[in-house]
Amino acid sequence: MRIAIDVMGGDNAPAAIVQGALDAAAEWRDTQLVLVGDTKRIEPLLKGQAPGNVELRHASEVVEPDEEPVKAIRRKKDSSMVIAGRLVREGEADAMISAGNTGALMTAGLLVVGRIEGIERPALAPMVPTLDNIGVLALDLGANMDAKPEHLLQYALMGSIYREKVHKMARPRVGLLNVGTEAKKGNELTKAAFDLLESAPIHFVGNVEARDVLARNCDVLVCDGFVGNIMLKAMEGTASTVFSVLKEEFTRSWLTKLAAAIMLPKLRGFKQKMDYKEHGAAPLLGVNGLVMKSHGSSDSVAVKNAVRQARIALQSNLIQSITTEISGK
Amino acid sequence: MRIAIDVMGGDNAPAAIVQGALDAAAEWRDTQLVLVGDTKRIEPLLKGQAPGNVELRHASEVVEPDEEPVKAIRRKKDSSMVIAGRLVREGEADAMISAGNTGALMTAGLLVVGRIEGIERPALAPMVPTLDNIGVLALDLGANMDAKPEHLLQYALMGSIYREKVHKMARPRVGLLNVGTEAKKGNELTKAAFDLLESAPIHFVGNVEARDVLARNCDVLVCDGFVGNIMLKAMEGTASTVFSVLKEEFTRSWLTKLAAAIMLPKLRGFKQKMDYKEHGAAPLLGVNGLVMKSHGSSDSVAVKNAVRQARIALQSNLIQSITTEISGK
Repeated sequence: MRIAIDVMGGDNAPAAIVQGALDAAAEWRDTQLVLVGDTKRIEPLLKGQAPGNVELRHASEVVEPDEEPVKAIRRKKDSSMVIAGRLVREGEADAMISAGNTGALMTAGLLVVGRIEGIERPALAPMVPTLDNIGVLALDLGANMDAKPEHLLQYALMGSIYREKVHKMARPRVGLLNVGTEAKKGNELTKAAFDLLESAPIHFVGNVEARDVLARNCDVLVCDGFVGNIMLKAMEGTASTVFSVLKEEFTRSWLTKLAAAIMLPKLRGFKQKMDYKEHGAAPLLGVNGLVMKSHGSSDSVAVKNAVRQARIALQSNLIQSITTEISGK
Repeated sequence: MRIAIDVMGGDNAPAAIVQGALDAAAEWRDTQLVLVGDTKRIEPLLKGQAPGNVELRHASEVVEPDEEPVKAIRRKKDSSMVIAGRLVREGEADAMISAGNTGALMTAGLLVVGRIEGIERPALAPMVPTLDNIGVLALDLGANMDAKPEHLLQYALMGSIYREKVHKMARPRVGLLNVGTEAKKGNELTKAAFDLLESAPIHFVGNVEARDVLARNCDVLVCDGFVGNIMLKAMEGTASTVFSVLKEEFTRSWLTKLAAAIMLPKLRGFKQKMDYKEHGAAPLLGVNGLVMKSHGSSDSVAVKNAVRQARIALQSNLIQSITTEISGK
């Protein structure tokens, strides 16, 4: 299998991305990695020791973090992100990984790689952290701001297949994010989606509430991109606020500093657990090829992990399974 | 002024509600309190000592916590909640307070008290806790699941007037809950609402993110009821999860128990701060009379505080100000 890596995207690009790719290439000799980016900047990082399963593909442009996504993808035809997407579309690569501009990557998925036939809206599906460390696959978390009930149905089908195929989970529980657990709850969107999900070939567990996500009240959380994003940011903001307040309290006196010395190592582990950045790359589901979004702050370990995830997804024929499921509707 | 109190609603009804009313009556002799409920149950609680500014109004029925709101309000014409609403509509009371079924109270506001002319959707506006203890007035937090841009505009106007009049806040900052702070962000609803809010006679500070609400990034947070509810529950769920994990960590060994002894008093204060139940009664804004929702778990102190809030709102001519602002459009 061949995986294209946009080595110019992300806060630590290109050094950390190239290093992660080299580590992945060393571990998985059966996997061909195509490093897409400015060869003049990549070559020195290889130190003349690129293994046989690493090749370079030059790209003269870079999509910047703050660029307007659609404009960037339309105009920068020679950017590392667009070229990586083109390699997937043209079958020269089976997957692409990027830690760059999220909006631009979603646009590249849509406009360069293209949708699976029958999929109306691709969805970004990151893992939301849970206390048991297993996580909830939530989709859509930002690819589409407005969704129709049929889109939520497709999110549910794709998310369910992803957890089965990539996470090897039997009968993943699909929940619909809502304001209460009763069947009649919610807005027009969730009420209509509820009926569709009930008759879908998934293990639908009904409406679920945002307050129970951390306790993993489901395995696949279905929501529109706007609401999902608000939920995730409310969780992040609250967790980080609580931690910063704790830190402040801990430094008030020698007595609280003593308490801090005892507790901080435990708190750090917990803080890390709550950090969704730790939970690997997020697939863009519904595009006709595997597109993985690695977090903007990815280091080499995160990049290597993204390659690991991409390999599992490819080995499990994820895209083919989604295509069959959707075209079978 | 006359305030009707539904003494049959809430987990601690009628005892705690009656006690709170008696405490309020003792403090504010200029305020007439109408206790609406089953007189046979109220009278023993008065111990024959009802002050002159307390009167009883018998109601033979009670709206139960789990009843379907619209059915309950339509059928139980002799319930304490409906009678309290009728007193407001007919000018026999200036305000009503209830700790009962939230959905039913919103329905009673709409169907019994009635809307202010020009208001399309009344909004429930509780305070979301913030680190500085001042709080953010958020609306709508559950009265309406689906909102149009014009509704969000009315929420902004009403919320702004409430903070000015009741909280004596000059130029309250109005923020639109969104997935990013840039002007073009969001779904169709927030994009259209953004333009309306920009030209409204309020201090609009633009889009605000859920992760910054705890830091009080605005004074009035505008959102549709579905999204607002998801945000609030995500915040609540995360805070309570973090606290329960901390508690667990603190009890692991004698060393962590020592740390707990030092830290727990501080943590308790912070936990209380994060509890939105502590932040008083929530007004149902947009109905033609003052309707205050006290939390279901209200004790006598919460009820007395709700009377305090109602008094301030009445003294500041809140409803008249909203009516003038809306009819002036």
